Amino acid sequence: MSDFPELMIRDLPAGLRLVTGGVTAARGYRAGATACGIKSDAGLPDLAMLVADAPCVAAGTFTTSRTPAHPVLLDQEHLRAAGNRAQVIAVNSGNANCANGERGLRDAHRMAELAAARFGVDAMLALVSSTGIIGRPLPIEKVAHGIQQIEVHPDGGPAFAQAILTTDTREKTVAVEFALGGQTVRLGGSTKGAGMIYPNMATMLCYLTSDAAADATFLQTSLRAAVADSFNMICVDGDMSTNDTVLLLANGRAGNAPLRGGDADSERFTTALRYVTRYLAREIARDGEGATHLITATVRGAASDADARQAARAITASPLWQCAVAGEDPNWGRILAALGASGAHMDADHIDIDLGDVALVRDGMAASYDQDAAKRAMGFDGTPPQEGAPPREVNIFVDLHTGDSVATAWGCDLTHGYIVENTTYTR
Amino acid sequence: MSDFPELMIRDLPAGLRLVTGGVTAARGYRAGATACGIKSDAGLPDLAMLVADAPCVAAGTFTTSRTPAHPVLLDQEHLRAAGNRAQVIAVNSGNANCANGERGLRDAHRMAELAAARFGVDAMLALVSSTGIIGRPLPIEKVAHGIQQIEVHPDGGPAFAQAILTTDTREKTVAVEFALGGQTVRLGGSTKGAGMIYPNMATMLCYLTSDAAADATFLQTSLRAAVADSFNMICVDGDMSTNDTVLLLANGRAGNAPLRGGDADSERFTTALRYVTRYLAREIARDGEGATHLITATVRGAASDADARQAARAITASPLWQCAVAGEDPNWGRILAALGASGAHMDADHIDIDLGDVALVRDGMAASYDQDAAKRAMGFDGTPPQEGAPPREVNIFVDLHTGDSVATAWGCDLTHGYIVENTTYTR
Repeated sequence: MSDFPELMIRDLPAGLRLVTGGVTAARGYRAGATACGIKSDAGLPDLAMLVADAPCVAAGTFTTSRTPAHPVLLDQEHLRAAGNRAQVIAVNSGNANCANGERGLRDAHRMAELAAARFGVDAMLALVSSTGIIGRPLPIEKVAHGIQQIEVHPDGGPAFAQAILTTDTREKTVAVEFALGGQTVRLGGSTKGAGMIYPNMATMLCYLTSDAAADATFLQTSLRAAVADSFNMICVDGDMSTNDTVLLLANGRAGNAPLRGGDADSERFTTALRYVTRYLAREIARDGEGATHLITATVRGAASDADARQAARAITASPLWQCAVAGEDPNWGRILAALGASGAHMDADHIDIDLGDVALVRDGMAASYDQDAAKRAMGFDGTPPQEGAPPREVNIFVDLHTGDSVATAWGCDLTHGYIVENTTYTR
Repeated sequence: MSDFPELMIRDLPAGLRLVTGGVTAARGYRAGATACGIKSDAGLPDLAMLVADAPCVAAGTFTTSRTPAHPVLLDQEHLRAAGNRAQVIAVNSGNANCANGERGLRDAHRMAELAAARFGVDAMLALVSSTGIIGRPLPIEKVAHGIQQIEVHPDGGPAFAQAILTTDTREKTVAVEFALGGQTVRLGGSTKGAGMIYPNMATMLCYLTSDAAADATFLQTSLRAAVADSFNMICVDGDMSTNDTVLLLANGRAGNAPLRGGDADSERFTTALRYVTRYLAREIARDGEGATHLITATVRGAASDADARQAARAITASPLWQCAVAGEDPNWGRILAALGASGAHMDADHIDIDLGDVALVRDGMAASYDQDAAKRAMGFDGTPPQEGAPPREVNIFVDLHTGDSVATAWGCDLTHGYIVENTTYTR
């Protein structure tokens, strides 16, 4: 018996053990949240803080949008100026602090200064994030009041996980424990999704903490690789929203020999980081607005890693296929069309497509398959899918037979719930 | 008073006169349609033919998908083999003849041979198109029977326009008359849309005819340029579906000196072709599945033509903005985010956005505008938009202030109607 859901356990690599606590699972971190009135529903928590007991080595990946939000610019500046170190993170939800001109940048700086001052640390060691509506000034006095009010605790991970949410229906948290050179190390984190898991513009934020000791360069390299295989594979990829941010802090409290890459311990940490980020990415996809199905698309036999990623993402990003999934209709022509349009190298006469354990396409043509079995592989069980219920799972396997590269992308279906959510968001 | 709708007249260049007839507006063409039982609703016309009285100079642009449908491969082969000449076109709707392996290509050849034989022309002068569901064998005996049955007439343009449709709600046709060196020339055509006007996979077909005399190279160059500014700007662009096809025939019956480019007459023809293709492209966008609003996005001040196109298309392709339009919610943050993610060069502090005549954003920040005026510019008139009614119009103007390039893209909103249409398409 386990305290953890099947989805968490399924791909857990050997040597990792699931633990609770999220961003406060590792030693030396406290977190908390408060409602300061930024969200229109005033009772909802909308300010979260994470504080380390001492300065940490920090790594970050950010949106590459040409219209980045002001907090993104501040974080990049602070990480540079502080030599990739950080100690305090403040996050508000309900307002993106984006497209607010000089005032926006000033507000981001003031938010960082207030957060640093609250815990007596240097302002350069504070990072900030904002998520919500674009183009409205950040209500900085409310934020200031919230920062004064907020209390942080070593068991504050769940409160933090909740306060960073916007249209998400649930918290997304995971943490693992593993051994590095005889020391026990933890790595945990929480994330927020995302309008629909879609080509662009839905903000994703993710905060990760570890008590491992690690070199800044190794940490940044590991984070970048993990993000490429996780958050960049859910089509809310880092280069798309104005606010996308992933931050990773490591405080060294575990007492392991600092990780520098190229050894077995570094490999173990990388494995843990990959598991945690991929788990959280899949959670974002499962909780897409209106989602009733989680779509997992794995492309193998691609000519290159880039081709594998492009092809896998093209399937999850296709609105026509997303609609077919919503209707549990195994209309594989839409998968084939998405693959063809992806730009990945392929030979139309040598493509295989499976849906779960049903072979739909062999050598680019319809295989002889049982239509009912194909519908069951789309989640069909005789009852209509319900929004709010745990999403049904649809697993697509494609073999392009042109090489050895493999990639997995996650997405969700396109439903009436998405339309309802997004037609009147700012009203 | 005019017999033509306002949308047709609005951008009509000087020297062009609107005429009726579509693909049979020009001299020397006959067209017709029949129902041969390919579509599940057996009474609907699903086979259309266009026949020229003599071999024509022909130009074509096709999908660049890596999984092109069999008719696309046949058309490219025939155009090459016949030295860019053609005389007969046969189109079926209801079945895409895509992903059918060797049989699919054989069926496409047989369809071309039957079409050519029906009118006693060389098989190499026949072109074929198919649109509909992917991965089901073309019912070639039904097609053969239909080709035997079909009657073509000099006034068959409207019947042709209707029979090529799939989920479209109405025919899309335009034709113009203009003078070339003292001769009166006509150019007309019909098109079919497309699931939603969206990033990919919705097939568009377009057939254009003229009685102008033109050199094959000039015709191909002109068509390519016109498509770049029209069908490629509605996000059903040529490189995306398995079946996308645009064909242009010119039979020389007008008796003008053959167009070769580089003179005023060639320029006049190019202007007419641009008008016709842009009109038809906009019609496809207006008739997107479930559409209640036509979105027109014009980006000016871009650093290059490619940047202008990318930025304009990013706006119309954003599902979040499409939903905002459905809800008539002037949530311009979603435009800004789409621009930022487009990859086009821009400075976040020097972006202006207008909605109709309402200035929403100046220098990358909210301008002071009247919220009710902004909502009216989204089509709001106090009543909810109705599917099936003429779509309301939303016009977005962006100035990037980084150069002199301009581009316009068209799209439509994302509504419940789209979800309904696409969740159970093959059932």
